[in-house]
Amino acid sequence: MTESTLTSPSAPLIHAIIPAGGAGTRLWPLSRRHHPKFLLDLTGAGRTLIQGTVARLEAVSATTTVVTGNAHLAAVADQLPGVPRENLLAEPSPRDSMAAIGLAAAVIAHRHGREALIGSFAADQTITDEEAFHGAVRQAALLAEAGWVVTIGIEATGPSTAFGYIRAGEPIDVPAAPDGRRVLGFTEKPDAATAAQYLATGDYRWNAGMFVARAGVLLDHLAQLRPELAAGIEQIAAAWDTPRRQEVLERVWPDLEKIAIDHAIAEPVAAAGGVATVPASMGWDDVGGFDALVDLVPAQTEGPAAGVAVLPGSGAEGADDVEGPGRVSAVDSPGALVATTTQRRVVLLGVPGLVVVDTPDALLVTTPQHAQAVKGVVDGLKAEGRDDLL
Amino acid sequence: MTESTLTSPSAPLIHAIIPAGGAGTRLWPLSRRHHPKFLLDLTGAGRTLIQGTVARLEAVSATTTVVTGNAHLAAVADQLPGVPRENLLAEPSPRDSMAAIGLAAAVIAHRHGREALIGSFAADQTITDEEAFHGAVRQAALLAEAGWVVTIGIEATGPSTAFGYIRAGEPIDVPAAPDGRRVLGFTEKPDAATAAQYLATGDYRWNAGMFVARAGVLLDHLAQLRPELAAGIEQIAAAWDTPRRQEVLERVWPDLEKIAIDHAIAEPVAAAGGVATVPASMGWDDVGGFDALVDLVPAQTEGPAAGVAVLPGSGAEGADDVEGPGRVSAVDSPGALVATTTQRRVVLLGVPGLVVVDTPDALLVTTPQHAQAVKGVVDGLKAEGRDDLL
Repeated sequence: MTESTLTSPSAPLIHAIIPAGGAGTRLWPLSRRHHPKFLLDLTGAGRTLIQGTVARLEAVSATTTVVTGNAHLAAVADQLPGVPRENLLAEPSPRDSMAAIGLAAAVIAHRHGREALIGSFAADQTITDEEAFHGAVRQAALLAEAGWVVTIGIEATGPSTAFGYIRAGEPIDVPAAPDGRRVLGFTEKPDAATAAQYLATGDYRWNAGMFVARAGVLLDHLAQLRPELAAGIEQIAAAWDTPRRQEVLERVWPDLEKIAIDHAIAEPVAAAGGVATVPASMGWDDVGGFDALVDLVPAQTEGPAAGVAVLPGSGAEGADDVEGPGRVSAVDSPGALVATTTQRRVVLLGVPGLVVVDTPDALLVTTPQHAQAVKGVVDGLKAEGRDDLL
Repeated sequence: MTESTLTSPSAPLIHAIIPAGGAGTRLWPLSRRHHPKFLLDLTGAGRTLIQGTVARLEAVSATTTVVTGNAHLAAVADQLPGVPRENLLAEPSPRDSMAAIGLAAAVIAHRHGREALIGSFAADQTITDEEAFHGAVRQAALLAEAGWVVTIGIEATGPSTAFGYIRAGEPIDVPAAPDGRRVLGFTEKPDAATAAQYLATGDYRWNAGMFVARAGVLLDHLAQLRPELAAGIEQIAAAWDTPRRQEVLERVWPDLEKIAIDHAIAEPVAAAGGVATVPASMGWDDVGGFDALVDLVPAQTEGPAAGVAVLPGSGAEGADDVEGPGRVSAVDSPGALVATTTQRRVVLLGVPGLVVVDTPDALLVTTPQHAQAVKGVVDGLKAEGRDDLL
């Protein structure tokens, strides 16, 4: 990507960081340890969630860096042929989001300088209004240039208990970033009554974990707040583009503190008055469970499965063999969702709104109302020792 | 079987005829053309429906004769090792129940004499109270000895629109058959209001297609009512135990009239006053659809699928490989039914009363309320040209 793709000359490009971790347990049996959520096309968009994330960032980013687990490196490289191999950073083991994002930020600082703007965006979210997203990132970049750690605040479309919230304070006066507001604080996932109170004030946004900052600003905050973690990350980053990378990584990485970027940086820096937010409405979804998929996958308008959302060959094992049309048929089942990665004929008869997930070794039949309980099913399989199904 | 198994010395043994035809379309995808309903263990009894039918008749029959299609002969022989091979009669093509039962009756008449009592019982029904069944067959045998064509009238447990009804008239005075009543007529499947009227009179029973008669009486009625059909059947029966069987069968069978025994004999003979019925309450079920299975298969009382009726390895393809326990698990799904012939883990989450039928090439998800609509699904597959799934 070159500077010429910048559509608003007043906003600088960022270096995009995409932490790609987490299995997406609530989407079992579609998502598995070895086929995590971000590697799947869960919305029938014709591209996987991580491919969508990278594509969406192209208009606002100079480079893309992905941090993922060793186990998923090959699959990520396969799915992202446009991302240079040197920008795919493999973690030897999961050390939570601060280590992952911190390492990427430090490597970018070494490669592009500490003034470089970085922006971190999860690999497994969807956004329908990309223009609104780009506008928010551009404002965030301008605020970040001015020294802020910036988070994008998602307009809450309901009193969700599934997300943490950002509390916005007074406006910030940065040219060309009119929506910027100081962040008064972050909250954990609230209960329903508290969430409703948040919404009523008009000052709360969902925290989607999107952070934009100068690399040097982020790393300086980390050095001040978590000096050991910062030192470890800097050691690895300094060795990254040298022959010593593997040796240093193996020695230092395992002892890095496991902590989320929210706790390590966002909360304490916000308390000190250093975090800004750009509120935005962009049709965002974290694809958190089958209830989300029911909303994200359009129902077929004709054919044997009319009225049903069908997600064929969603990227899991065996999906390559799947024929497209005609494998799912439905009668009297409007609003149902079928996700299938097998060759079987799936027939729904009189089951409106049902969720059927059909994979070669596991079948889940549930409803959107039970989407959050899927995690418990996976926990049960784990307790049973059925690692082959996880 | 010898005479010693007769428990009531006053009742003669019958020669049991079991017509085994029909795919059981409403139990798709468990039942298929090549794995018809009667060859499956649909109730988790540990034996298939035809095995249950033969076992249930042992106490009241001297011999057992099965009439089935060529395509199912090998499977029937495998499942019924106790029935002599010569008593398995293969039809070259389906010619409806009169030809099937008539042929068996005529072969039995040649082997055991025209005075022999025959009794015809469908291969794919279940009966929970076998003593009541035996009692009814014994009374029917006594009435048949006296020259009646006898049908067993099933106590109607509700105003079903799925069965034809028998209308019983005045009692018949035959010693040791106190329940015998003249049949005033047979009805086609009624609408719900008519069925309710039938029940209110107390004179109507369900017609389960169970007929008992002297072989000669049945064949004489046929000769009078359908002389061409009777002559054709007699030609084949006369050649059956000779080297000419195949030649005569191939020449005569294809032109036999296709007609049900109800229309060919039961209705006209009843109109002439020659049919009796023995009303009986015996826990009868014709296993007509998944709604019936929900009632017939007991729910598991413990384990991961507690509260759910599980029918593993129901006899269809691949069932031999199925492990027993632990393959189905359920949360918040009481009253659901899972029939599975695959190796997959099936998980139900929050779907009480649902019906899930999991086979290697087809998955059906439905409810007991839609049991009768399954036939329409199969018709649709046929229209689509998916003969491989039928």
